[in-house]
Amino acid sequence: MTTDIERVHIELAERGYDILIGTGLLDRPDTYRDLPVGAAAVIVSNETVAPLLAEALARALSGRFARVQLVVLPDGEAHKDWPALNSIFDALLASGCDRKTVLFALGGGVVGDMTGFAAACYMRGVPYVQVPTTLLAQVDSSVGGKTAINHPLGKNMIGVFNQPLRVVADLGTLDTLPQRELIAGLAEVIKYGPIADAAFFDWIDANLDALKARDKGVLAHAIRRSCEIKAWVVAQDERENDLRAILNFGHTFGHAIETGLGYGEWLHGEAVGCGMVMAADLSARLGLIDAAYAGRIRAVIERAGLPVVGPRLGASRYLELMRLDKKAEAGEIRFVVIEAPGRAALRRAPDALVAQVLDAHTE
Amino acid sequence: MTTDIERVHIELAERGYDILIGTGLLDRPDTYRDLPVGAAAVIVSNETVAPLLAEALARALSGRFARVQLVVLPDGEAHKDWPALNSIFDALLASGCDRKTVLFALGGGVVGDMTGFAAACYMRGVPYVQVPTTLLAQVDSSVGGKTAINHPLGKNMIGVFNQPLRVVADLGTLDTLPQRELIAGLAEVIKYGPIADAAFFDWIDANLDALKARDKGVLAHAIRRSCEIKAWVVAQDERENDLRAILNFGHTFGHAIETGLGYGEWLHGEAVGCGMVMAADLSARLGLIDAAYAGRIRAVIERAGLPVVGPRLGASRYLELMRLDKKAEAGEIRFVVIEAPGRAALRRAPDALVAQVLDAHTE
Repeated sequence: MTTDIERVHIELAERGYDILIGTGLLDRPDTYRDLPVGAAAVIVSNETVAPLLAEALARALSGRFARVQLVVLPDGEAHKDWPALNSIFDALLASGCDRKTVLFALGGGVVGDMTGFAAACYMRGVPYVQVPTTLLAQVDSSVGGKTAINHPLGKNMIGVFNQPLRVVADLGTLDTLPQRELIAGLAEVIKYGPIADAAFFDWIDANLDALKARDKGVLAHAIRRSCEIKAWVVAQDERENDLRAILNFGHTFGHAIETGLGYGEWLHGEAVGCGMVMAADLSARLGLIDAAYAGRIRAVIERAGLPVVGPRLGASRYLELMRLDKKAEAGEIRFVVIEAPGRAALRRAPDALVAQVLDAHTE
Repeated sequence: MTTDIERVHIELAERGYDILIGTGLLDRPDTYRDLPVGAAAVIVSNETVAPLLAEALARALSGRFARVQLVVLPDGEAHKDWPALNSIFDALLASGCDRKTVLFALGGGVVGDMTGFAAACYMRGVPYVQVPTTLLAQVDSSVGGKTAINHPLGKNMIGVFNQPLRVVADLGTLDTLPQRELIAGLAEVIKYGPIADAAFFDWIDANLDALKARDKGVLAHAIRRSCEIKAWVVAQDERENDLRAILNFGHTFGHAIETGLGYGEWLHGEAVGCGMVMAADLSARLGLIDAAYAGRIRAVIERAGLPVVGPRLGASRYLELMRLDKKAEAGEIRFVVIEAPGRAALRRAPDALVAQVLDAHTE
């Protein structure tokens, strides 16, 4: 049982929703009290998380839904694809789920992205709830309504915007998270500093060891502040025009690393961590920030335990992959750069300059 | 060149769009004048329509777009599936299409449904234009924003609502339409009478021979009135709650026929024609309309050249298939019935009564 529940509200054009943050939320029936009523709840999870948490969630939902069903996906970014997505549709159709069915995404970013996409498309739309169980999903991927699957030619290329009914971020679910995944999640926490809140970046810098040691109070603050910043950005730009794109700091380089290596080699947060080092250096080379601030971003990322050197795919391969980025326009890559501590923008950059950055940060 | 362009406006919550109806619209650059500008236009068509019309459309678009590209899908409802949808994504990604790309659906309902769905999902959404080339698509499937692919367990089960930027209904494209497809399209025209406009039903009854003979003036009126009725219904209920469901008169039985036989055996309009005979009879057996009016609906459908007797799949198989219908709730099938000439509603019906209907209209 928890007594301390924090609530971050996301206000959107059509309707708003709440992110609940606390310990012990997942298995409390109260957490789901005012959701719409349907005959069936379907928990979508993966083979790692389901054995740990699905039964507790099913029990908490059993008072509201006549039937609670579980769909288990294979674990990992490599399975964020059509066959896994279709296995959700197979299960929903085989058990006769109707349009009032509510889906629950129990897992990390991959489960959240696929469940949100499946909910958007099943019978042209059923509601869904995010129950993120990784730090990365709690601070980033479960908030904002982006859903997608990967395509062999690009990450997250096939998807829609689909806002959840609610996000339930239970800190207790992080207890069993492998340290490598916790650290990968820290990449997205760190991100919010340089792009939006210089004071939060100072706070992260000062509390990095406590975050890595999973101090619950420190984690709760990091999650709340990350969600607040993301909520503020998303509310102003639900469908990703330029403002929202700043949330992708480090992602243009990061996606190229992920796609270039094949999904699943690096964790998403690891690729983003390394991508932020590159994007910070690019910002410095463009004359927007001084080299010392870029160096400080790199130092925090390194101290977090994230990779700061990317694979040597060659500058031309990186550029080719980045031209496929969703933010690119007419073949021109638009990078998220830091204009000043706590402020980001979208900029184009000469290929030669990008090649220098890649040369300096790959091996 | 045409001088006579009719315009039906659909007003929606977020934005409205126009349906242009006329002869010779497709190859006039003016038709596309005020669309958003992008680097690439991608025409999605099928192997039957593309050789006849793709070049003319590409020429009309070439002034606005630096690049006009063509994606050709296999023809037919049997290919309204994931592999064909994914071939659109393959083509878009392989040629580096960005988020400003505009898709053009050139073909019948299958092409329109798949192009609209692909547009909704490509990089989480690019705009699209419907250029329907069958009567069925001009009066029904290209208007209203329903997009989908089929699943082995049910028709149109995977899809989203996605409104086009514009619908361009060029009567000239119907010249090469096989007679069987023209007649299948008449099923959806006939539909609008019993559900929404008793006087239009009288007009159809009186002009059926001219419609079958492709009299351009009579066809133009039928298309405009059908689009007006659909626009009126969709504007009030964009996301298909109960009101919009009346557009599915005949479709619950019809989808069961299509799924039961395997997609592609009957044309969609043929299944809907037969389904309307069943739904009209069910309305009479429920005491809502008299048997004479149900008989008149059947007579018009038969005189149009549509099938009025369904395949004998067995009542239990029909009921099983219909329970998977998207309008079903908690396993209860909701039928679109005629309450009075020109007025429809959603009703449940006892299985035994439905079985009587199936018994009377299958062999």
